[in-house]
Amino acid sequence: MRLTRYFLPTLKETPNEAQIVSHRLMLRAGMVRQTSAGIYAWLPLGYRVLRKIEQIVREEQDAAGAIELLMPTIQSADLWRQSGRYEDYGKEMLRIKDRHEREMLFGPTAEEVITDIFKSYVKSYRELPRNLYNIQWKFRDEIRPRFGVMRGREFLMKDAYSFDLDYKGARIAYQKMFLAYLKTFARMGLRAIPMKAESGPIGGDMSHEFIILAETGESAVFCDKAWLELDVLGNAPSYQEDLDPFFAKHTSIYAATEEKHDAASCPVPADQLASARGIEVGHIFHFGTKYSKPLGAVVAGPNGESITLEMGSYGIGVSRLVAAIIEASHDDNGIIWPESVAPYKVGLINLKQGDAACDRVCEDIYDDLLTAGVEVLYDDRNERPGVKFADMDLIGLPWHLTIGPRGLKSGVVELKNRATGEKLELSQDAALAKLTA
Amino acid sequence: MRLTRYFLPTLKETPNEAQIVSHRLMLRAGMVRQTSAGIYAWLPLGYRVLRKIEQIVREEQDAAGAIELLMPTIQSADLWRQSGRYEDYGKEMLRIKDRHEREMLFGPTAEEVITDIFKSYVKSYRELPRNLYNIQWKFRDEIRPRFGVMRGREFLMKDAYSFDLDYKGARIAYQKMFLAYLKTFARMGLRAIPMKAESGPIGGDMSHEFIILAETGESAVFCDKAWLELDVLGNAPSYQEDLDPFFAKHTSIYAATEEKHDAASCPVPADQLASARGIEVGHIFHFGTKYSKPLGAVVAGPNGESITLEMGSYGIGVSRLVAAIIEASHDDNGIIWPESVAPYKVGLINLKQGDAACDRVCEDIYDDLLTAGVEVLYDDRNERPGVKFADMDLIGLPWHLTIGPRGLKSGVVELKNRATGEKLELSQDAALAKLTA
Repeated sequence: MRLTRYFLPTLKETPNEAQIVSHRLMLRAGMVRQTSAGIYAWLPLGYRVLRKIEQIVREEQDAAGAIELLMPTIQSADLWRQSGRYEDYGKEMLRIKDRHEREMLFGPTAEEVITDIFKSYVKSYRELPRNLYNIQWKFRDEIRPRFGVMRGREFLMKDAYSFDLDYKGARIAYQKMFLAYLKTFARMGLRAIPMKAESGPIGGDMSHEFIILAETGESAVFCDKAWLELDVLGNAPSYQEDLDPFFAKHTSIYAATEEKHDAASCPVPADQLASARGIEVGHIFHFGTKYSKPLGAVVAGPNGESITLEMGSYGIGVSRLVAAIIEASHDDNGIIWPESVAPYKVGLINLKQGDAACDRVCEDIYDDLLTAGVEVLYDDRNERPGVKFADMDLIGLPWHLTIGPRGLKSGVVELKNRATGEKLELSQDAALAKLTA
Repeated sequence: MRLTRYFLPTLKETPNEAQIVSHRLMLRAGMVRQTSAGIYAWLPLGYRVLRKIEQIVREEQDAAGAIELLMPTIQSADLWRQSGRYEDYGKEMLRIKDRHEREMLFGPTAEEVITDIFKSYVKSYRELPRNLYNIQWKFRDEIRPRFGVMRGREFLMKDAYSFDLDYKGARIAYQKMFLAYLKTFARMGLRAIPMKAESGPIGGDMSHEFIILAETGESAVFCDKAWLELDVLGNAPSYQEDLDPFFAKHTSIYAATEEKHDAASCPVPADQLASARGIEVGHIFHFGTKYSKPLGAVVAGPNGESITLEMGSYGIGVSRLVAAIIEASHDDNGIIWPESVAPYKVGLINLKQGDAACDRVCEDIYDDLLTAGVEVLYDDRNERPGVKFADMDLIGLPWHLTIGPRGLKSGVVELKNRATGEKLELSQDAALAKLTA
């Protein structure tokens, strides 16, 4: 993409309303624009990141055997009355009356809808287990929306729902999502730690929040330093294997939020305990028959008996992750995108737009990168080098390739790694080889 | 995907509520489920088609130079008051009050929001032209929603908005979308014809509906038979060229909706005139300063003067297209998907699940197809051949590969083309070669 034909409204000033670094950087990098309190338009650069994150979430859900569908944003109030949540939910639910005065709502979550869909079609234990997910916009009418997309009102969420015949099946479904979540966040360059969460009325050990570590995170967390070394992607079992050992290992290493951590009773020696800050980006939860019972979601068992389905739900805050990754990965100059979620892999900087040699080399490199399938943003504006460097650091693409008249005279271009700051002078061919490898 | 692990609830009976063939087939093929009047959940098979269509639309918008972003579903009423449409829109607009009693709405379209975003950032003629689009769920509170997703209340739409300095620029933007639309629909196997539509208060020739031909279409249309022969993909100019000749040619061949057609004054001789039925799937519209003026969207021109932006909007009914394609492509047995939008390319049918030879060959072929990147749905259910054939015809995948014990004895498998009905007996290798070519 050529910057002169793009829509990337970066800001020089830090907007006053932004209290946290991700919100400031997303506004300055032209990623989002607030259209109403807690409601954002995703500008082109931000939307590219959102879609990359969404795609990683999707691939890992698919790999774990979950099946994608899409539920609507607007739901009928009727199902929520059946589950008993319509009155409970309070003012965070955006309630709507349509032209026929029917009571509707903008879904804050979808347990009722998916349970109703599932029970309408699935009648036999033979069609179990299943895990259905969707990635859809939700709405929670927060009384005081803030922190940008970190706590917005309209937000993108992946929500999966598992259906099993019994607790044993539900446990396997839970463990698969547990593993999928660790893989998902690791692919985004995040260190995510599952922490035991409130398990609700049915008890048990199957409720975890996934908290990613970020210096500027919203809450304090404590964990065994072993968490900081774990290589999830390298050691993950396949989904066909028994996941008990993996689950047992990863739930036994100590990790707790501030509310649950008690220094006096903590089993980890002080020198092995890390104190850090974190951001919740996911929550998995086994809730048994909480919704299947009131909604009548039953199947016929092997002997024809009626069995109420065991369910769990599994959420990931997709739009929240955009901000969370920035909280975990930035410096004073701007965002530092992990390559897997970067809006473009390469930023191509022409130091002297209008100079015949610079223009020609830039055009060649731009074409070569596109041909090789490398996503590249070409800063072809007629701007001073300082402005171009600052903008490129701000938007945080992983690799900056700079072409200037001086370098060209000695036959080199400059390749900078945004994360490390390392700069290499390379021939044009060597730089291309590195970026297309 | 293995059918025994999928979620594909096909129905044997035709549901009573469905009045048109696409609605009947989408319900029977397990593609959608109504969750409230005119509001649908997209089940896995339907969602795959929706995403394929969305992706073709996206690629053609990108190719035409439009830039993708995402606007929220919930908008503030304020902007609509500024444009004067808040009261005008009537009961089709879903109006909402949030917890602070602020007036909001579920966007039925987004001229106001995009104009407000654009004017906030773009201040100079140098940053023109631009065309920004998004693919987002919209809501229109139809008094009597019907025909499934053809006229639902919550629907997915691509809406693009062009911003230009003057009429000449706006005309180029319009012609680019005109071409992009023809290419988009052609890629989906549809014959789409642009027909002059009401141009609104500013007049001119820049308002077209795109109508695709389908025997069971909602309205009667008349066109020069030349339209039935045109090869849009083969003859399309590039976006860098002058599009005037292409636009002139394609707007001069006669085509009119029933309302606009007048047999007496029709310039086409009777033997050259085709009468057909059609479905509107897109609308492009130049509206000049209708929104930029009340919303104050101006830029500084070359001499510093303030210039009100020229705008156009360009819509495609993405969810409606799923139904429209079915109306245009089906037979008595079910849907016939064009390969470009098919949920899977190949349906693999095991005629005798449990038979060692059949199972082994099916597993091999399944693996080989996946390895080759071919999307395949494997019917590995323990069902009678008749059930499997009927379901495969119903869901309409382009190629059916059938493995049975008799064929295997003679070393052949059967490959059927869903569209033509042609069946070939081939060796396993030859069938694979054909499907992976």
